[in-house]
Amino acid sequence: MAASTTPAPSTSARAGAIGSARVTPGSLLRLIRTGAARSRADLVALTGAPRSTVSARVEQLLASQLVYEGGTGDSRGGRPPTLLAFNSKAGLVLAVDLGATSARVAVTDLSGEFLASESHELEISTGPDTVMEVVNALADGLLAELGSDPAHVSAVGVGVPGPVEFSTGRLVHPPLMSGWHDYLVPSAFARFECPVYVDNDVNVMAAGELGSGGGSENFLVVKIGTGIGCGIVVGGQIYRGAQGCAGDIGHIFVPHDPTVICRCGNENCLEAIAGGAALSRNAAAAGLDVHSVKDLVRLALQGEPPALELVRNAGRQVGGVLASLVNIFNPSRIVLVGSVAEAGNPLLAGIREVVYRRSLPLAARSLEITISDHGKVDGQLGAARLAIESLLDDERIDAELEAV
Amino acid sequence: MAASTTPAPSTSARAGAIGSARVTPGSLLRLIRTGAARSRADLVALTGAPRSTVSARVEQLLASQLVYEGGTGDSRGGRPPTLLAFNSKAGLVLAVDLGATSARVAVTDLSGEFLASESHELEISTGPDTVMEVVNALADGLLAELGSDPAHVSAVGVGVPGPVEFSTGRLVHPPLMSGWHDYLVPSAFARFECPVYVDNDVNVMAAGELGSGGGSENFLVVKIGTGIGCGIVVGGQIYRGAQGCAGDIGHIFVPHDPTVICRCGNENCLEAIAGGAALSRNAAAAGLDVHSVKDLVRLALQGEPPALELVRNAGRQVGGVLASLVNIFNPSRIVLVGSVAEAGNPLLAGIREVVYRRSLPLAARSLEITISDHGKVDGQLGAARLAIESLLDDERIDAELEAV
Repeated sequence: MAASTTPAPSTSARAGAIGSARVTPGSLLRLIRTGAARSRADLVALTGAPRSTVSARVEQLLASQLVYEGGTGDSRGGRPPTLLAFNSKAGLVLAVDLGATSARVAVTDLSGEFLASESHELEISTGPDTVMEVVNALADGLLAELGSDPAHVSAVGVGVPGPVEFSTGRLVHPPLMSGWHDYLVPSAFARFECPVYVDNDVNVMAAGELGSGGGSENFLVVKIGTGIGCGIVVGGQIYRGAQGCAGDIGHIFVPHDPTVICRCGNENCLEAIAGGAALSRNAAAAGLDVHSVKDLVRLALQGEPPALELVRNAGRQVGGVLASLVNIFNPSRIVLVGSVAEAGNPLLAGIREVVYRRSLPLAARSLEITISDHGKVDGQLGAARLAIESLLDDERIDAELEAV
Repeated sequence: MAASTTPAPSTSARAGAIGSARVTPGSLLRLIRTGAARSRADLVALTGAPRSTVSARVEQLLASQLVYEGGTGDSRGGRPPTLLAFNSKAGLVLAVDLGATSARVAVTDLSGEFLASESHELEISTGPDTVMEVVNALADGLLAELGSDPAHVSAVGVGVPGPVEFSTGRLVHPPLMSGWHDYLVPSAFARFECPVYVDNDVNVMAAGELGSGGGSENFLVVKIGTGIGCGIVVGGQIYRGAQGCAGDIGHIFVPHDPTVICRCGNENCLEAIAGGAALSRNAAAAGLDVHSVKDLVRLALQGEPPALELVRNAGRQVGGVLASLVNIFNPSRIVLVGSVAEAGNPLLAGIREVVYRRSLPLAARSLEITISDHGKVDGQLGAARLAIESLLDDERIDAELEAV
């Protein structure tokens, strides 16, 4: 770096130098499992690292069984290269998606491919003992079906409908989960003797949306259901904040007349005005035959004008908060999920109306706001991806392979 | 990773495994320059990497002159260890802090220590040609004073009072900088033949607050002056968003009656209600002898009740937006800077009143809100740190040393 020894790169070369990939086993594994690299030559070309360094680290990955060799690629003159591939069969993942009224359990491989899955209707408010007994019974059934057992599970991913301390998996005053406060979710999976990753439902959906291997995108997954919450992805990673409760947008103040008291005790929280419960209450008050938000969404999808207007208004309220989020975060896209989001276009129209009017032009310019295709942003797939990406995290792999 | 070969770590061991440091030249340099490691033995202990790996990478750092050996440490039995230290004299940094009415230039070493500095009053609205000529003349004077020249400058850091595209250093419609739109700041420093890092004033102050070597904290630096903006630090890094305009909180909508039109054309932007210009206008309308925000701040510091109330009210308006930011970001602390922030306690009281009432209890629990000690969060120091941390970024060092 001394001016006399290493010529400093010019400004124009700066982006390239900063963007160069690191050459650790974890970063090479990521290039292989995302399909960016299919051979040692690809890894050398992508990282700019010496061939000897790449080869040594590939040997570590082969020894760990996370990567295997097989087949040969096209020759570019000379001996055709031996192909490298991610061994997605190196372990199993248990994915658990707990909802307010259901428990869904799946077993996937390390690429997130579903091998078996089952779900069970049950009220989460029956408490952790009952729910976790059901989940473990479903897990055993699925593993038996696959001719496998708990020893083959490399990681467990769990999504819960409430606030959870990510570092420990402990629930913190979850409003919809009575009896769960302070419950340590990983304790229910101790017999698997593997890492257990627990996060709230929106972050888990954001993990699902992130896809395999991450990427470097900044985006938001906004859930509009009974509650309203936001999963924040910064540079391809779920952002959790100092206490792990980042993204709690449901209790942001929104201007509203008359004042509405939220279940949290505060006035005019977004959730109390535009959440599912508020919407179905407003619909009933407006004389619509509505007993739940599902009824209202059905009427909106049928094109009933009062239902459309209620949903669009909720969109405007959510849009006001999302406009702030856009100015603060400058995300490239926002994906909407949840029972209210299923109403589709009228909600989107209300949100877009306010977001594009109230956001900084530079931030709004190429912002994309979409409703998730039904089932595409999925809590169960998300729980699997949360577990896989945490387990195969670059630094974790580096530490594990250095330690061998 | 296969269950049969590598035993998966237990849940309780997980945090440790994830937290293990990477062992690249850049990450070792960080441990040395933050003072966390003072010898090869320290590096081995901190990273858990084999001694041979650490030694090879230390050799690379010694060859680059970024690290030097000198003296010996305490023996723990056996030969006393040779000490390693960061060579902060390996290059110079030019730090430029452009304000609305001043240009401040400093030369620092690679630890951010000021070697020489000078400032010059001039209106930024005189345009880039005039301003940059002054800046370059100041730089030449400082370098001559140090018996040095442009060839010894390893990096330039520049803070500007307007929106800038970080990847290129190009200004984008800066409202206070007429004639600067589309201006490429690095072009003014081409003769230094080194990387030039340009960011807006709030991000630069956040870089200054971050301190040497970064850290992993999540915090916000909020500037309340003529404009209102926010520097966001996520995991020890400035967060810039998709288009580089994250943190633009000045144009978030706030409820206000009567409606106020902002200079951006929108209604009820935070800046139009609680910014410096709005405050001095309101003070004059209330019959106070106030011609600028400085006058109002002086009256508030003298304890004049109407001035105190105006500042406190501005604090409440800012507090409403910061409460949303807290729910969204869950930062560990917020540092307030800028001309309005100099009013101190009445502003802080207004902000705290709303933030602690309107934020999620878990997020507010250990949140610290403070006014920066005057001069502590400084644009000039920030510009130096921006340049140093970008220049010595782990991945950049790794790429540079791999490429040698």
